Amino acid sequence: MNVKARKLAINEERLQKRIEQLAQIGKIGETGVCRLALSAEDRAGVELVASWMKEAGLHTRIDDFGNLIGRMAGKDEQAPILMIGSHIDSQPYGGQYDGVIGVLGGLEVAQTLNEQGIMPAQPIEVVAFCDEEGCRFQKGLFGSKGILGMLEPADLERTDKNGITRRQALIEFGCDPDRLEASIYPKGSIGAYLELHIEQGPILDDAREAIGIVSAISGPLWWTVELTGFAGHAGSVPMSMRKDALVGAAKVILAVNELAKLDPQAPTVGTVGHLEVFPDSRNIIPERVRFSIDLRDIDLKRRDEREQALREAIELAAIEGGLHYTITEDTNSEPRYCADWIKAIMHEESSKLGASVRELMSGPFHDALALSYVCDYGMIFVRCKDGISHNPQEYAAYEDVALGTELLYKTVLRMCINQ
Amino acid sequence: MNVKARKLAINEERLQKRIEQLAQIGKIGETGVCRLALSAEDRAGVELVASWMKEAGLHTRIDDFGNLIGRMAGKDEQAPILMIGSHIDSQPYGGQYDGVIGVLGGLEVAQTLNEQGIMPAQPIEVVAFCDEEGCRFQKGLFGSKGILGMLEPADLERTDKNGITRRQALIEFGCDPDRLEASIYPKGSIGAYLELHIEQGPILDDAREAIGIVSAISGPLWWTVELTGFAGHAGSVPMSMRKDALVGAAKVILAVNELAKLDPQAPTVGTVGHLEVFPDSRNIIPERVRFSIDLRDIDLKRRDEREQALREAIELAAIEGGLHYTITEDTNSEPRYCADWIKAIMHEESSKLGASVRELMSGPFHDALALSYVCDYGMIFVRCKDGISHNPQEYAAYEDVALGTELLYKTVLRMCINQ
Repeated sequence: MNVKARKLAINEERLQKRIEQLAQIGKIGETGVCRLALSAEDRAGVELVASWMKEAGLHTRIDDFGNLIGRMAGKDEQAPILMIGSHIDSQPYGGQYDGVIGVLGGLEVAQTLNEQGIMPAQPIEVVAFCDEEGCRFQKGLFGSKGILGMLEPADLERTDKNGITRRQALIEFGCDPDRLEASIYPKGSIGAYLELHIEQGPILDDAREAIGIVSAISGPLWWTVELTGFAGHAGSVPMSMRKDALVGAAKVILAVNELAKLDPQAPTVGTVGHLEVFPDSRNIIPERVRFSIDLRDIDLKRRDEREQALREAIELAAIEGGLHYTITEDTNSEPRYCADWIKAIMHEESSKLGASVRELMSGPFHDALALSYVCDYGMIFVRCKDGISHNPQEYAAYEDVALGTELLYKTVLRMCINQ
Repeated sequence: MNVKARKLAINEERLQKRIEQLAQIGKIGETGVCRLALSAEDRAGVELVASWMKEAGLHTRIDDFGNLIGRMAGKDEQAPILMIGSHIDSQPYGGQYDGVIGVLGGLEVAQTLNEQGIMPAQPIEVVAFCDEEGCRFQKGLFGSKGILGMLEPADLERTDKNGITRRQALIEFGCDPDRLEASIYPKGSIGAYLELHIEQGPILDDAREAIGIVSAISGPLWWTVELTGFAGHAGSVPMSMRKDALVGAAKVILAVNELAKLDPQAPTVGTVGHLEVFPDSRNIIPERVRFSIDLRDIDLKRRDEREQALREAIELAAIEGGLHYTITEDTNSEPRYCADWIKAIMHEESSKLGASVRELMSGPFHDALALSYVCDYGMIFVRCKDGISHNPQEYAAYEDVALGTELLYKTVLRMCINQ
């Protein structure tokens, strides 16, 4: 579909200008962004977006989790909120679209409603959640989990690489970590949640489709596996006497890859992304190898089957190689499905826009994952070039972002008027 | 064979005391040694051994390569030298037998000859070569290559981790790096070379044999292989679209292992000991993997065949995975065979000692490797527990060291009298 040829309800030009302007804060190189959560750059970004929220007529505040919230009154102020959100913090070597298009797209939707003189049935809140990325304190979804009462006390004591605790960082950001309770949303107060985000994967780009509708955020299973054999001189220990931990790890790496591909129609993915060898010397047989396994699927039963097969593959590699092994489960999340009724609205509205859309799984986490535990949710993906993100090379075409925002607008319109 | 029950010609007790005394210099923990080449500890060690050489009646000097040389006059002072050597420098986290038993064993042989009133036909020189290990300046066999004129000018400019050049270190050690030429041995001046060393592998320990006769120092082929694919989010890139460099590396690791085991009777060994992943994050598909390959054999033709098969396996893994690859050859040494006539003497003399001995390949390098280019050589291995070396846990029983030294003595006797 040629977006330029269409008349959009949202203000495409304003949206583009804001994305460009926000990208100046924490800019690295020509196209990159470094806006670490709760940093001075993050604060400057929040203040800039807050100024635009006010310009859009939203009642704007920063809560004590560091979330920026812009509220638009509804006809029934007691009705459960329709929340639209994402984040504006970035990876240390990140791009200018990840999170940002969801916040500025949501703002664009609210501003367009205001400009159209439409008062929604329920209050709408546009939220820039604090620290979605999690790269500073090694744990993300801080703001979105925060407002839902899903944090643990220890989360405030996590430190960054300079030894600064999140508590200190919140105070420096202007928040009061002793008053967090007051920022938690009461049960039932959020009616639904919508999020617009770049895909961070290559499916839409490969299919030459500008936008897609998310079916679910897949449930990642994260393991750390350690295989232990016995070191020895690479020149002097006969092959038959070796207990080479890296040979065992290689078998497991291939098993992860094969098991994820077992059903070529399924969206199952399996990855070994991190691996370290000890003692890691060219002429010493590896004594110990520690590596990560990341297994995701939207079908939990299938993922459980793959997990079982993987356990058997690790056991076999250990027996064959004379190795000991440990498996540590770091994360075990279930898939979280988008609401069928919200997806149905999105399909109908995208058809009206003339866009060809497919449903696709989200491998990465989003703030929507936290929200999924308290309300129905829906997500729209915008294609990004070659699927690249968490990298200054991250790129999404403005016309694609505008189309995704237009679909978000149409979806909100249906959810706040026609219900 | 029960060594204790035998009367040995060498002085077993003196040998043990010297090994224990030398182990005090640079001692780490209960059993470890750190005596880095050209360090103050190395100098203290050299001076202690020099004092024992003098005590043994040897004419003793330190040359400008930092080699300690003790000379015993022969009936024909012009005859090619019978050299017996090894080294007393150690790994940073090393043991007390590696190198040391060859130097102190050689000294024990010379001292025993003197005490027996035997004057050899040719001069005998016992040498503690400087910097065999190579861990300080990342290149070993310095002293043994030095006396043979096999060094390159750049070898003097190599720096340690504190930025000290080998040239500076030599000066601090008391050597004159501008006078190295004078320390080079004229062509033909060395008649034969013998070295006693711990095995640094598990073959003798596994076979419950105290000593062995080395057949050859195998020729290592050292490669650095780099596979490059394309990074992406571990949750969002479908398996069919991935270019995962670690999956490719896993195939190569298994190929190295399988190819080395192809002929179960052959001593071929293949190892991937070092491996690094980029960007090495649990939720990012590996873009680049760099790893070492170490392939050794005493049969160069067989090693060449394995090399060719390995190149094909790398090519195949790259094609299957959509990867680019580079192979960098870091070292390509040919196997260096021990002289048949020296091995024959060793076999005869070990039979007389009642010892069961086998021939075995040396995977690791030794000073003998350098000497092999100018003269015939022979090596005797002493078993070490579990094959452990380059580690404070390195252990060889004194009775095994004594038996190896006795065989060295008998071999020298045959070579310096009966020829």
